[in-house]
Amino acid sequence: MLRDFAKAAKPSKQERKQRVIAEQAKLAANQLRIKEAKVPIMIIFEGWDAAGKGTVLSKVIRALDPRFFQVATMDNEPSKDELRYPFLWRYLVELPAEGQFTFFDTCWMEAVTRGLYSHELDQRAYDKRIDSINTIERQLVDNGYLVMKFFFHISKKEQKSRLDALASHESTSWRVSEKDYEENQAYDEYLDIYSRYLRDTNRSAAPWYIIDAKDRSWATAQVLEFINMGIDVAIHNKGYSSPPRQNVYPLQRMPLLRDISLEDKEIEQDEYRKELRQLRTRLRMLHNEIYRKQIPVVIAYEGWDAAGKGGNIKRMTAALDPRGYRVFPIASPEPAEKARHYLWRFWKRLPKTGHIAIFDRTWYGRVMVERLEGFCTENDWQRAYNEINEFEHELVQAGTVVIKFWVQIDKETQLARFTDRQNTPEKQWKITDEDWRNREKWDQYEEAIDQMLQRTSTTFAPWYVLESNDKRYARIKALRIVIKELERACKEAK
Amino acid sequence: MLRDFAKAAKPSKQERKQRVIAEQAKLAANQLRIKEAKVPIMIIFEGWDAAGKGTVLSKVIRALDPRFFQVATMDNEPSKDELRYPFLWRYLVELPAEGQFTFFDTCWMEAVTRGLYSHELDQRAYDKRIDSINTIERQLVDNGYLVMKFFFHISKKEQKSRLDALASHESTSWRVSEKDYEENQAYDEYLDIYSRYLRDTNRSAAPWYIIDAKDRSWATAQVLEFINMGIDVAIHNKGYSSPPRQNVYPLQRMPLLRDISLEDKEIEQDEYRKELRQLRTRLRMLHNEIYRKQIPVVIAYEGWDAAGKGGNIKRMTAALDPRGYRVFPIASPEPAEKARHYLWRFWKRLPKTGHIAIFDRTWYGRVMVERLEGFCTENDWQRAYNEINEFEHELVQAGTVVIKFWVQIDKETQLARFTDRQNTPEKQWKITDEDWRNREKWDQYEEAIDQMLQRTSTTFAPWYVLESNDKRYARIKALRIVIKELERACKEAK
Repeated sequence: MLRDFAKAAKPSKQERKQRVIAEQAKLAANQLRIKEAKVPIMIIFEGWDAAGKGTVLSKVIRALDPRFFQVATMDNEPSKDELRYPFLWRYLVELPAEGQFTFFDTCWMEAVTRGLYSHELDQRAYDKRIDSINTIERQLVDNGYLVMKFFFHISKKEQKSRLDALASHESTSWRVSEKDYEENQAYDEYLDIYSRYLRDTNRSAAPWYIIDAKDRSWATAQVLEFINMGIDVAIHNKGYSSPPRQNVYPLQRMPLLRDISLEDKEIEQDEYRKELRQLRTRLRMLHNEIYRKQIPVVIAYEGWDAAGKGGNIKRMTAALDPRGYRVFPIASPEPAEKARHYLWRFWKRLPKTGHIAIFDRTWYGRVMVERLEGFCTENDWQRAYNEINEFEHELVQAGTVVIKFWVQIDKETQLARFTDRQNTPEKQWKITDEDWRNREKWDQYEEAIDQMLQRTSTTFAPWYVLESNDKRYARIKALRIVIKELERACKEAK
Repeated sequence: MLRDFAKAAKPSKQERKQRVIAEQAKLAANQLRIKEAKVPIMIIFEGWDAAGKGTVLSKVIRALDPRFFQVATMDNEPSKDELRYPFLWRYLVELPAEGQFTFFDTCWMEAVTRGLYSHELDQRAYDKRIDSINTIERQLVDNGYLVMKFFFHISKKEQKSRLDALASHESTSWRVSEKDYEENQAYDEYLDIYSRYLRDTNRSAAPWYIIDAKDRSWATAQVLEFINMGIDVAIHNKGYSSPPRQNVYPLQRMPLLRDISLEDKEIEQDEYRKELRQLRTRLRMLHNEIYRKQIPVVIAYEGWDAAGKGGNIKRMTAALDPRGYRVFPIASPEPAEKARHYLWRFWKRLPKTGHIAIFDRTWYGRVMVERLEGFCTENDWQRAYNEINEFEHELVQAGTVVIKFWVQIDKETQLARFTDRQNTPEKQWKITDEDWRNREKWDQYEEAIDQMLQRTSTTFAPWYVLESNDKRYARIKALRIVIKELERACKEAK
């Protein structure tokens, strides 16, 4: 794309200035429109070193009220800590909220193109990254984001003379690194790499805009015009539904809830104590091993109210070194969370390599409570099965072990436990009116849960049903599954 | 995608039947909704031979009023004549009108996968086809089409037993060809080829649906459910704007109209006659040569009213063998044309290999008259620059020579010619009130034309300006350009 890039005729200096001023005024008006329309805007600046991204950025934000935007400067090597997360993580945690702009001064493109140049990424790894990037950009747009991507383009000669100018002044020489000169020396090679990346990620949902960046006010005018145009389209398209996508991941067959037998899923007290001791010892050792092997682990709990999730998690964590795990109880989202992609709060809580994150309720709220209570549109939750599979696939690709538990009880058992809670003073905090209301919707929930289990039990992140009429049985089963999964992962990591 | 394909749990026979009936009823209701919403629907059936596409198709259309759908059976080798057009041509001429369904019993997928299997398509050629297909599917969706793609999937064993069953009965044995058995024998190889194609074309705008086709009523239920779901989304999204895309093709610099000198672009009568004779002789020979070399040629004329397009075309065709060219005067579209993608009427008029199609006005109406008269939305005409470049790129890829003329006069010359027409009885038919109205909008047109010339003068299909204050000068220049372009094409075709 870059070799063929034909610059449009550049207007006169006078006209360029006027256009910048006019577009800045338009952007200032637009920030209120997007606030009202609740559109989150992600603006990505990529391009050659010294192409003037910073200068243009400062002119673009000049039009904006500081309450309405953030700048995420990603133009540096990921820190050691950031490298312990999936590669998209450091960008995704910076996602804008609705009605807000986030300007990314370089984003996920740079990590990929640098990897190609250094041969750290081979063809296969590159393809995977491209898939991940196209997937997340599509997800963002499907979830109402405006994603605008600009590539700042200058010639080899222009870049060289800018680098020389920067290097020759004391006040700016610190801004020029060897890496910058290296890019200039290998300009043609980079040109191919950049072109390839632009081509591979130039999708309808989030197309690329190449900016002729030789003249700065002209570059600014172009960027502003595209942003204002994009905002018009995004506001016009507010409420757009995405065509439903069929699952593309291998699925495991799952039984329907009604076909899961809860009979005979019991364990004697003595047997339970003995097993628990043995399994804990084993799990403690494995926790050490996954730490040494730097394997991240996600354990996700979903289940009926009063199914025994809390007690199950407690038995799990009792075996773990507290420095190596965290439990996240998931309630309804905070305002800052609600204003972003619904998976954002889970991206933010991902475990580092070697750590375990345990979720007491999860991202599956989208296809259960949010679906049934109408907190999202039908298109939203229909789309979510695939989006969640993509999310978990991304985690597994990054080496994460993902274990998902459905804690199952029958309706009578729930009633008995609710009644017990109600009648036992020290348990009363555990039962609310909402629990009783949810119980009334048991059948609707059962249908939603069945669909969830059918559609999201991928081979790489399958659901495990914990039969929990006897809580002890469920606890032993959970421990065994976690141990089995961690053993497998440790073996494969060797 | 196919190897990993996980079948969803199949409902009972009773339930399958009920779902088919319910969905058929829903589709019957939906045909009226799409009629009203003016959505054109393209439904593509692909898949294994003997997977039951025909059976399902007949059950799907049972719900529909015959006035609302067509079936395009493309499941055969392209005819000799069809092979003389760009490979998408035979499918695109079958495009549905708004409010209509067209069911494609196999579409552009099959030609590509068969080519891969037989090694007629190498990697490069395959990539080009994929680009063309993704481009046209996106264009259709951007222009309001609902495009739904189904792949009918059965196992190798199932296919074998179906083929055997068909072959063993006298009444059905004609339906089984050697090609079908060949696909079964090479099932695994085809599985890879199909998976690859599905993956490469599984875009947001038109995703794939893989149909578990072992049971026919279950396959029917699935297809109907997806179609009804797709219709809901398409109606919901009616009026959606596409994000504007930046041009990705190499452009030639074009002057602004006001900078084009019309002075000294004259030729003396004697000189004109002599030249005309020579050029015609040369063009006549070249017309033979492009016929022998099977090169298709498109010559497109745009220009101001009274600029002299008609006379210019007449001088061009005077040199041509009437069996080898056609002139298409383009006025406002017929109802059947207006109800389809705006390029459809031009796809239909493309030249066969070895033939010349001359367009007196063209697809550029979209960014001139349709833009200025409000016959399409701003998003429509903004998008059209890129769509038109893609269209012409497709033609050039298929070996077509594309020559585009802008016939230029100044405002005074137009006035003189209008007045002359008005005052000369035998020329009065050439001048209408509309011409005068258009003349009042000269400045708006000039701006639109400048943008058009800047944005669509690709290196592979550049604009040529014919200075036509002196019509003879313009005619000679046109002939010279056509000769030069045909000579180049003949040379390259060697």
